[in-house]
Amino acid sequence: MRRTYRTTEQIRALTSVARGDSPPDLLVSGGSVLNVYSGELLPAEVAVVSGRVAYVGARRLAAGPETVVLDARGRVVAPGYVDPHGHPQALITPSELARAVLPLGTTAIVADTLIQLRLMRPDRTREAMETLADLPLRFFWFLRVHGQAHSPIDATIMGMERLEGLLGLEDVRAVGEITRWPEAYAGEAGLQEKLSAALGAGRRVEGHAPGVSADRLQVLAGAGFSSDHEAIDAEQALARLRAGLFVILRHGSLRPDLPALARMAGGDRAFSGRIMLSPDGPNPLFVHTMGYMDHALKTALEAGIDPLAAYQMATLNPASYFGLDEELGGLAPGRRADILVLPDLGNPRPEAVVAGGRIAAEDGRLLAEFPVLPWERWLLPLAPGAWRPTASVFSLEGLPPTVPAMHLENTEISIRREVSIEDPPGRGGSDGYRLPEGVLGLFFLDPGGGWRCRTLLSGFAKRLGGMASTYSSGGGIYVMGRSPSDMAAAATRALDLGGGIVVFEKGTLLFELPLPLGGLMSTRTVAEAAGAVSELTALLRERGYDHHDITYSLLFLGFDSLPYVRLTYRGLWDVMRGETLIPREEMG
Amino acid sequence: MRRTYRTTEQIRALTSVARGDSPPDLLVSGGSVLNVYSGELLPAEVAVVSGRVAYVGARRLAAGPETVVLDARGRVVAPGYVDPHGHPQALITPSELARAVLPLGTTAIVADTLIQLRLMRPDRTREAMETLADLPLRFFWFLRVHGQAHSPIDATIMGMERLEGLLGLEDVRAVGEITRWPEAYAGEAGLQEKLSAALGAGRRVEGHAPGVSADRLQVLAGAGFSSDHEAIDAEQALARLRAGLFVILRHGSLRPDLPALARMAGGDRAFSGRIMLSPDGPNPLFVHTMGYMDHALKTALEAGIDPLAAYQMATLNPASYFGLDEELGGLAPGRRADILVLPDLGNPRPEAVVAGGRIAAEDGRLLAEFPVLPWERWLLPLAPGAWRPTASVFSLEGLPPTVPAMHLENTEISIRREVSIEDPPGRGGSDGYRLPEGVLGLFFLDPGGGWRCRTLLSGFAKRLGGMASTYSSGGGIYVMGRSPSDMAAAATRALDLGGGIVVFEKGTLLFELPLPLGGLMSTRTVAEAAGAVSELTALLRERGYDHHDITYSLLFLGFDSLPYVRLTYRGLWDVMRGETLIPREEMG
Repeated sequence: MRRTYRTTEQIRALTSVARGDSPPDLLVSGGSVLNVYSGELLPAEVAVVSGRVAYVGARRLAAGPETVVLDARGRVVAPGYVDPHGHPQALITPSELARAVLPLGTTAIVADTLIQLRLMRPDRTREAMETLADLPLRFFWFLRVHGQAHSPIDATIMGMERLEGLLGLEDVRAVGEITRWPEAYAGEAGLQEKLSAALGAGRRVEGHAPGVSADRLQVLAGAGFSSDHEAIDAEQALARLRAGLFVILRHGSLRPDLPALARMAGGDRAFSGRIMLSPDGPNPLFVHTMGYMDHALKTALEAGIDPLAAYQMATLNPASYFGLDEELGGLAPGRRADILVLPDLGNPRPEAVVAGGRIAAEDGRLLAEFPVLPWERWLLPLAPGAWRPTASVFSLEGLPPTVPAMHLENTEISIRREVSIEDPPGRGGSDGYRLPEGVLGLFFLDPGGGWRCRTLLSGFAKRLGGMASTYSSGGGIYVMGRSPSDMAAAATRALDLGGGIVVFEKGTLLFELPLPLGGLMSTRTVAEAAGAVSELTALLRERGYDHHDITYSLLFLGFDSLPYVRLTYRGLWDVMRGETLIPREEMG
Repeated sequence: MRRTYRTTEQIRALTSVARGDSPPDLLVSGGSVLNVYSGELLPAEVAVVSGRVAYVGARRLAAGPETVVLDARGRVVAPGYVDPHGHPQALITPSELARAVLPLGTTAIVADTLIQLRLMRPDRTREAMETLADLPLRFFWFLRVHGQAHSPIDATIMGMERLEGLLGLEDVRAVGEITRWPEAYAGEAGLQEKLSAALGAGRRVEGHAPGVSADRLQVLAGAGFSSDHEAIDAEQALARLRAGLFVILRHGSLRPDLPALARMAGGDRAFSGRIMLSPDGPNPLFVHTMGYMDHALKTALEAGIDPLAAYQMATLNPASYFGLDEELGGLAPGRRADILVLPDLGNPRPEAVVAGGRIAAEDGRLLAEFPVLPWERWLLPLAPGAWRPTASVFSLEGLPPTVPAMHLENTEISIRREVSIEDPPGRGGSDGYRLPEGVLGLFFLDPGGGWRCRTLLSGFAKRLGGMASTYSSGGGIYVMGRSPSDMAAAATRALDLGGGIVVFEKGTLLFELPLPLGGLMSTRTVAEAAGAVSELTALLRERGYDHHDITYSLLFLGFDSLPYVRLTYRGLWDVMRGETLIPREEMG
């Protein structure tokens, strides 16, 4: 794998400018440069040519007639932030995420390929990855080797053949995240074959091992895991570091854990180079109101992590981890010119952002131009046919009197809870189910109408007519509520939109967020999507939803590597026991 | 490039042992493990299977009937030392160096390929590199892209074709060292083509930029240099770190600079992960009497570098730099089981050494078995023909009355100094040259007798009959002295030996060290070669040699990237001006 993408032509230009033989394209002048290599703030000129840093030093290089000069007097000049673990498909597109976070200082993201693998036409995947990688914000990739939920299409969309075809791409820096860590622990042959292929290709292996003990981590490290981002307290994070794993301290909408994690990054250990920061795919509302890597970094500073170390965790450390330390993560010759002008070290939100050598944002305003992307050419349609569910699909008939049900404990964890239902609890129709307060019907449907999975859901909302969501790990459509007719209306509308989140009550459309791009992404900006998340949250809060992130509650309904029960293609699934509690029903 | 070489079979064994399902091959039990990742000394059991670390933790794994138990109670258990910059051809073979330094705790060396490229049959190079890599001490390689002296064979033996053929080998982790840094600075096209090929293949570029200013380093960093080991004081080392280069702090027989360098590795910077230690190819006498990486580490500790940081500089940092952090440099699952049992952290010389999972040494005694290597099959003969020089070859006739001569300032630096000679200064014969005291004749000869280069040499010895040495950067035979007949006798004997260092005086053989392997390497052990170096040093000290390392004085006579004048294939060469002072003479 390349450590730097600089070309011979670029090297010619870089060395010429550094020698003083030709003028730079851009000079960032008069600032104090944060040198993440030596750990210093040093007054220095930064010269850029051909998209890369040519010179950092005391010499004042002569500007040419075309040279752009960025005044950084009295300011700190820092490298752009590198997110080591992004999920750029959270209700918006990678390019909209990039447009939102570039002005906040994030200039590179090593990102999930779940959308590419699940949603894209196989013959367009590579084109899409290459096109997305070259946006003004630089995307690199971690390649999924299995879905977040077991599904019959996994074997093809994330099988060895496709994996091997994509593993050779320079921009693929890792495989993962390995959500099915128990299979790695047990030595499941299919997963091990994929891990071995990744190790043979020199790729990192992104672990996902929530709650796994120090002792069991030893097995996962031996199996090839090279990082983990699932620690939720300092002790767990330290156990991961001790096992030889790189540690990503997470702080985002799903889990804002930095205050609890920061304690492990004290003293000399802060400088280990093996600790990184990531917001781990925050929802658009969080990005819009709190920020992205800048927010994680700000929180790290507030939590008492040494400022130099904190900046390294957001810049050099992720670059080094992915073998990109000669390309990203610091201001030195040859590196991509991703440069931030900060008011001071305590304020990681930049006043100006240079990305790939061009001024990409000033004072929070995006200046970089983004191409229009041909999503229609890349994506498979969510619902191939014209099938739409009727209210009768949402009948609870045939369930046992005591139903093994899901109870949402918090945003992402669901436990099994038995619910006694009257017989019959409901047959569909506008009057709804006769169920205890706070219990909803929950369905997972094939968008083509081939099958359904059923259970009941508590801990989500006290009352709700019908809500449908294609925003899920599982690839189908989730529908929950107390009124089969509202549920049918919501699901029908979501399918009509080609994907989306829709709420109906008493026959009235209360909310819709179209997600026409594979059922996961809207065509909206982060600000617009943030408004929709805000609206949806308010709507559900009124109805009793009291967890902190509705988007992750929806996304993870079928994420069958998280405890304890999930509604998946296999039916209602007991994760720890590995058994089906209520089987899938064919509707054919 | 692979980050780890572990195979699927090994992963099966590792995870099985870590789960407790099968017994380890080896248990290092009861010690305090130096965890270089988290920066701690922690009581832990270390279990090994299939040559790799399977488990490090508190659990006491059950030993099987075949399990070897190494008692580490009261001891520190540390990862083996990794030399990032070795030259395993300094008068001995790589395997003899390995036999000497394994008991001293060095378990891996990223090593020079000068011998492979200069001395080996092209069709055997790859076989030799693969065979040498798999000795009990693990060799990786940096690939030379040019010689240490300009030579007509450079274009083929280190040309693009051969480079591209070897650059794909997993064990080749870098190219370099780039001794011709001025060509990189100037953007010389041939060198840049090689650097670009290396960067494209994801390899590091080992710099060699002695005395280069902070400002000029910017050009070299842009050209692709990723490390430098030539800093001789703290300020130079810091300038290299600031330029984004990794820094190797050198401490060996050529330059024991750690006390002067250590100051730059204070405070948080000690933990940057971008600082490494290396002895940079010490001569056998130094290895035998002082040590190797253990000595550099001990010196770093004495110089006040934080102990944890110092150990990281000798283990994890070089492993990480070369993309081998999942293979080497720390004790965590999946890593090669290169394990040291140390008396305590202050004593880096191990009581026991495990290499690749086997006990390789105890109490300084080597236990590992080394294969017999087929050097004859690999190497080209030094002198293809039967030509032997007569005394008349060493005539000074025809030199101008004022000769531009070499004066050895210290072990490795030679300056130009004019010497007036009587006419005629000598015609050969037993009575010798009529030259001022302390001035010798110096010749560089084609071992096949095709050409000679001549000058005079001062600062080396006050008196000396004749000395011949094939131990040189340049690939020919150097002969110096005041007696043409002794010089002819020494050169003849050196050629008869197939290479060597030979001293004759008044017709008597005073010293010989046969170097039949390409003229650079003996078949002796390090201890034996150390004796020879000691004997040669004493012999020359008696004759007025007052620098600190005779082996490097000989090796570098033709090293035309070092200042200021060198005797090379191009004749007497002014390095800074790039011009010939006395041309080569054809004898053919």
